[in-house]
Amino acid sequence: MHPDRLFPPDPKVRTIARRLYASVSDLPIISPHGHTDPKWFATDENFSDPAALFVTPDHYVFRMLYSQGVPLERLGIRRRDGKPEEVDPRKIWRVFAEHFHLFRGTPTRMWIEQSLHDTFGIRERLAPESSDRIYDQVSDFLARPAYRPRALFERFRIEVIATTDSALDDLRHHDATRQSGWSGRVVPTYRPDAVVDPSRRGFAADVESFIAMAGAPMTWAGYLGAHRLRRQYFKERGATASDHGHPTARTANLDRASAEQLFSRVLRPSVSAEDAELFRAQVLTEMARMSLDDGLVMQLHPGSFRNHNTELSSAFGPDTGADIPTKTDYVHAMKPLLDEVGNDPRLTLILFTLDETAYSRCPKAPIQKQIGPFGENVFSAAAIE
Amino acid sequence: MHPDRLFPPDPKVRTIARRLYASVSDLPIISPHGHTDPKWFATDENFSDPAALFVTPDHYVFRMLYSQGVPLERLGIRRRDGKPEEVDPRKIWRVFAEHFHLFRGTPTRMWIEQSLHDTFGIRERLAPESSDRIYDQVSDFLARPAYRPRALFERFRIEVIATTDSALDDLRHHDATRQSGWSGRVVPTYRPDAVVDPSRRGFAADVESFIAMAGAPMTWAGYLGAHRLRRQYFKERGATASDHGHPTARTANLDRASAEQLFSRVLRPSVSAEDAELFRAQVLTEMARMSLDDGLVMQLHPGSFRNHNTELSSAFGPDTGADIPTKTDYVHAMKPLLDEVGNDPRLTLILFTLDETAYSRCPKAPIQKQIGPFGENVFSAAAIE
Amino acid sequence: MHPDRLFPPDPKVRTIARRLYASVSDLPIISPHGHTDPKWFATDENFSDPAALFVTPDHYVFRMLYSQGVPLERLGIRRRDGKPEEVDPRKIWRVFAEHFHLFRGTPTRMWIEQSLHDTFGIRERLAPESSDRIYDQVSDFLARPAYRPRALFERFRIEVIATTDSALDDLRHHDATRQSGWSGRVVPTYRPDAVVDPSRRGFAADVESFIAMAGAPMTWAGYLGAHRLRRQYFKERGATASDHGHPTARTANLDRASAEQLFSRVLRPSVSAEDAELFRAQVLTEMARMSLDDGLVMQLHPGSFRNHNTELSSAFGPDTGADIPTKTDYVHAMKPLLDEVGNDPRLTLILFTLDETAYSRCPKAPIQKQIGPFGENVFSAAAIE
Repeated sequence: MHPDRLFPPDPKVRTIARRLYASVSDLPIISPHGHTDPKWFATDENFSDPAALFVTPDHYVFRMLYSQGVPLERLGIRRRDGKPEEVDPRKIWRVFAEHFHLFRGTPTRMWIEQSLHDTFGIRERLAPESSDRIYDQVSDFLARPAYRPRALFERFRIEVIATTDSALDDLRHHDATRQSGWSGRVVPTYRPDAVVDPSRRGFAADVESFIAMAGAPMTWAGYLGAHRLRRQYFKERGATASDHGHPTARTANLDRASAEQLFSRVLRPSVSAEDAELFRAQVLTEMARMSLDDGLVMQLHPGSFRNHNTELSSAFGPDTGADIPTKTDYVHAMKPLLDEVGNDPRLTLILFTLDETAYSRCPKAPIQKQIGPFGENVFSAAAIE
Repeated sequence: MHPDRLFPPDPKVRTIARRLYASVSDLPIISPHGHTDPKWFATDENFSDPAALFVTPDHYVFRMLYSQGVPLERLGIRRRDGKPEEVDPRKIWRVFAEHFHLFRGTPTRMWIEQSLHDTFGIRERLAPESSDRIYDQVSDFLARPAYRPRALFERFRIEVIATTDSALDDLRHHDATRQSGWSGRVVPTYRPDAVVDPSRRGFAADVESFIAMAGAPMTWAGYLGAHRLRRQYFKERGATASDHGHPTARTANLDRASAEQLFSRVLRPSVSAEDAELFRAQVLTEMARMSLDDGLVMQLHPGSFRNHNTELSSAFGPDTGADIPTKTDYVHAMKPLLDEVGNDPRLTLILFTLDETAYSRCPKAPIQKQIGPFGENVFSAAAIE
Repeated sequence: MHPDRLFPPDPKVRTIARRLYASVSDLPIISPHGHTDPKWFATDENFSDPAALFVTPDHYVFRMLYSQGVPLERLGIRRRDGKPEEVDPRKIWRVFAEHFHLFRGTPTRMWIEQSLHDTFGIRERLAPESSDRIYDQVSDFLARPAYRPRALFERFRIEVIATTDSALDDLRHHDATRQSGWSGRVVPTYRPDAVVDPSRRGFAADVESFIAMAGAPMTWAGYLGAHRLRRQYFKERGATASDHGHPTARTANLDRASAEQLFSRVLRPSVSAEDAELFRAQVLTEMARMSLDDGLVMQLHPGSFRNHNTELSSAFGPDTGADIPTKTDYVHAMKPLLDEVGNDPRLTLILFTLDETAYSRCPKAPIQKQIGPFGENVFSAAAIE
């Protein structure tokens, strides 16, 4: 693999790129949005097989293959209706290898090839004829102690990784990891979408459990109190941030009575799209207010139209139904929140974007607190607007 | 003309560009959206003169000159009210030459200069002093047998060209071409905008003729039946695709009763903008459904605000009134169609765009079936979303 | 300072950039939108101190520092409520120097460093340890006759500069400059926003003064007459253009009765957002119509969400509350105006944009009359659409 493969071709610019890269390439990894399963670090079990590592958990991989005519069942994705899917990981890997050429020119291929090369010592291209050889070699490595999650964490020089955890999670894996005596730092992130987004399946039941966990009454005030308690619970286990995945960046700042009425309405069986949007908007402002007190950095990921493919998401569940970036407004959407807390120096808000045209409409303040490398495009609205 | 004139200046990138270009420059041309008149190939008559070839049929050319103060009448564009326009092609050419410097830096100039250079052997710049010389040389060439449409088709190594034809067209020129024994492949494309867009002048009368051609009743079902018959008629004459020029990419999937009522409403003298949009949206989904059966590839060109200049379009007719690209949403707009047929592997849908910011919001699936070089920006939503 | 610091790194492109720059670098400056105070040229007094030159008048500078936690009071910005602000310019300069590293990578730093280097002979970086030295050297220069506004005007080889002046301004400074016998050409620009935008504080009172200045009745016709008179007044003092800063590019072309009713409504204490927008839209078309007669070039600056930070703008007044670029539509918004006057060759309209995605949606006509270098992104819709 060419060491300059991601650098610009111009020799002068490439020289600068090399110099910049050399200045950071040996730094430890601080991963504030790590997309890893906390159970990995708690149990430290070996990964079972190459398909479970590279194919079945990655919806960018299997969705692309589906778009080329490969049924998800052949890739080992489980159907909700109980119809059978492929369960032999070697066969799943073969289907993957057979179609791997379709990833030509995509970041997915760059990333997978680098992983195979650097971590598993693979020196040939993934293709039907190399499929079994590569499967065997990766499997062989995966079975070794040096390829367990904690060993990889250390080998990759990760200083800290933040996972993303439901507000309803008891964080038992985080507790187990911390209590194990292992020195690696794995922290949870407070992700309350399940109890913030009324358009989610099971929202009302989740809110009920959520408030019950806090022993609070089923009121707007009880709901807010439950957030405060859960945020504290997460913070005690190392959390430094909350994380919010919303369709838009809309925020709201309703008076108390309106918020109470809205809370009642969104718990009913049928919620209007506008009420759902308004509730998400209002809770973002509440989260921002709470962050001033407990110091959790707030992260917002708007702009993804999730589960765009209705047929897929109803057959296979969420996160299989194709996410598509949409145009995203921040300037108008964030104003209610910023009017409320935007001039408070305690606020730290990180806005992620999937809409590159938003860059030119970014509030002109530069990044205030850079908290590590990011896996997605990111810009930051500084605390004070 | 510098052989590298369209390549990047960086020597390393330029070397790659040259290598890529060399790998395709000798391939035959497969033109799925050829913007040529089928009559050219049927009658194979010589083009009459340089102005009729380069100026009067090209609204990008004459509109730009109009924006610089040149009246369209001086460029030979016919007024609807019968007032006279310039008819001497040499004089039209002189006006063109006099203002040709205004095209500096435009693709139009690049294209015209390359045509004059490569096809007509012109070795001087078009300007007032060279105007008559170039006119005479191009005229001289145009009169030769080697410059007739079929000869040029062969000389340009065109393997197939698809024209764009109204759903109401009897395709007599296509028939004549095919029956002539000439080996060139010229196929029609089903372009039903005249009977799909209720905001067009004469829409109701066109729909009536359209349904009458099929011997069907003036109902929604009759209308759909007429489409099926006409698509078949086109397919029998070689068509491989339909083509749809809509203001937006909006699609709809109404129930039968609502569609029937909408059909009645849009045939009335005054149609609301929303009904017109909804009808176009609904017909796109119908076209997609029919494409599953007859296999015609579906092409959609949304995002052009046509006839923006009211005064021009009323004085000179459609396609003279300035088209302007607009922001185009695909993600929400295409969902009803994709929910209906987007998971069917028989669907092939090509989305064109005039809004480059749409690229980052393209469904992540890569191009499924590439069917040739394109004259406009193009990206493809693969069959299975 | 590296002479190529703003050129591309590729040697070939850099050579072209150098050649292009050399062809214009010695040309005199024609500044159609100069952002200078006409009083400077009328009184020709020395600038008082470095902070008053670089910090307190520049909301891009102090807003960025505010976003990093620096209170505006420490930067010498006056509060509306009379609470004290820093008044010692040397202390303000020290705060600026202390935070100057935060401008790394911004155009603001490039511009300030170039000014300090080229105009004030500074050869060290602005930082806490150099703060006082630089303050003293700049102060020393500012006290010299060669650093008075007129001398700088001549030294910078400015051929003409257009200031921006309220429609209510009596232009006394322009008169004084012209009558002083000085040869520099400083012309006013007609900026009527205060009497065009009903959402501005004091709008009704300003309209009343405006109409009173013209001795016209408080009617729509009187209002239009006042514009005509004031435009003439500006033109007699050298104005060549009007300038309009609107939230959007929306235009309207109401019939007379509707315009009269709208005029009455917007003078009432509480104006709806839609009425305010419609009034601005209508006046743009009126301005365009008047420009056909008096020949003032029309400039439109849409797309800035002004005073986004409510707390700041209420504490410190307008132009301190953070402007943020927004998405801007031109294609639909400009149609009513263009339908009315867009085919008249006397119209010259310059559209500025803060939304770079608008470029691909620019009417395809190239720039018709280029009237000088611009301080912002600019494209021009030619007179005839």
